Amino acid sequence: MDKRQSIIEAARARFRYYGIAKTTMQEVATDANVAVGTLYRYFKDKDDLCAACADDFVARHQREIDVARSGEGSPDQRLRAYILGRYRHCKEVGTESRHAAELARAVLKVKPQRLAEESAMMQGAILGLLREGVEKKLFQIQDPERDMGVFLLSVAYFFPIATAKPPEWPKEEFLLMVIDWFVETWKRGAKKR
Amino acid sequence: MDKRQSIIEAARARFRYYGIAKTTMQEVATDANVAVGTLYRYFKDKDDLCAACADDFVARHQREIDVARSGEGSPDQRLRAYILGRYRHCKEVGTESRHAAELARAVLKVKPQRLAEESAMMQGAILGLLREGVEKKLFQIQDPERDMGVFLLSVAYFFPIATAKPPEWPKEEFLLMVIDWFVETWKRGAKKR
Repeated sequence: MDKRQSIIEAARARFRYYGIAKTTMQEVATDANVAVGTLYRYFKDKDDLCAACADDFVARHQREIDVARSGEGSPDQRLRAYILGRYRHCKEVGTESRHAAELARAVLKVKPQRLAEESAMMQGAILGLLREGVEKKLFQIQDPERDMGVFLLSVAYFFPIATAKPPEWPKEEFLLMVIDWFVETWKRGAKKR
Repeated sequence: MDKRQSIIEAARARFRYYGIAKTTMQEVATDANVAVGTLYRYFKDKDDLCAACADDFVARHQREIDVARSGEGSPDQRLRAYILGRYRHCKEVGTESRHAAELARAVLKVKPQRLAEESAMMQGAILGLLREGVEKKLFQIQDPERDMGVFLLSVAYFFPIATAKPPEWPKEEFLLMVIDWFVETWKRGAKKR
């Protein structure tokens, strides 16, 4: 791992556990095993580090999408794995880090387009998978854009917005119930041909 | 309207607008146009009034279900109207009353079974409508219990839990998009027969 990446990961861990306000550049440098002067060569302040954490999040999401679009398995298996992966990741961040909401708010402050970006990435990934399924005669979908929208809304309950306080996280088995039902519905028409 | 009902409505309006703590039994009596001694003959304290407000809420829901189950129109029209009515009602309570979360928490304290009760009512109503649709050959549904569960989860995003703080209410047009898609999917199979 290069120095920049080590610094980002040290910062994210500190931010999540202690919050941004209680984290110093010195602590991040120590955790990342670099001199504080080195840290400042990469990031000029905590806002800059926050923005880098956000970019890293987006890069991770992009890698997940790459796997979903060109990995092993059928389009419905990849769709299922992609959504489930996103869910697990969001749940982990939302429940295991004590300052997730603070971090999310800070990121939105330095990168206000962040939520729209994530959402557009997810939409594009799902739409691509639905179209691939149609081309491969696995799905029969009249209007993939519409079904993508409906599907995202139908699973939205499972992705509470991080800046709001979730009272309790919905169970994974219910998410699977929704995804499986959609996939089966989409497949049903295709099988009849 | 009888005295008891007038008192409940006066109490609910006060609770919603000023909160429970800032509402006195005297104020409720004045608003309801009854003597405070009369008020105490019906309700022994604010907790008792809170519980009555909750019961009134349930009674209202039951009337909505009665309309959904035996009103005019086809089962899918009644399903759509029922869900939309619930949504509008929840949105109104959640956004227009400043103390909705406080009131919801107070109700859950005096009536902890309240959420489960509401949920069971909604499940029963939707299941009944799906079965009616199947009997009338309007819907083709393999397992109505499962589809009822999936449908409820798919619209759950539109019913944020009142005790949590919603950052912004999702748009009604998106809810309709989900409902319509489900209804069309259910109808599709039936039409092919």
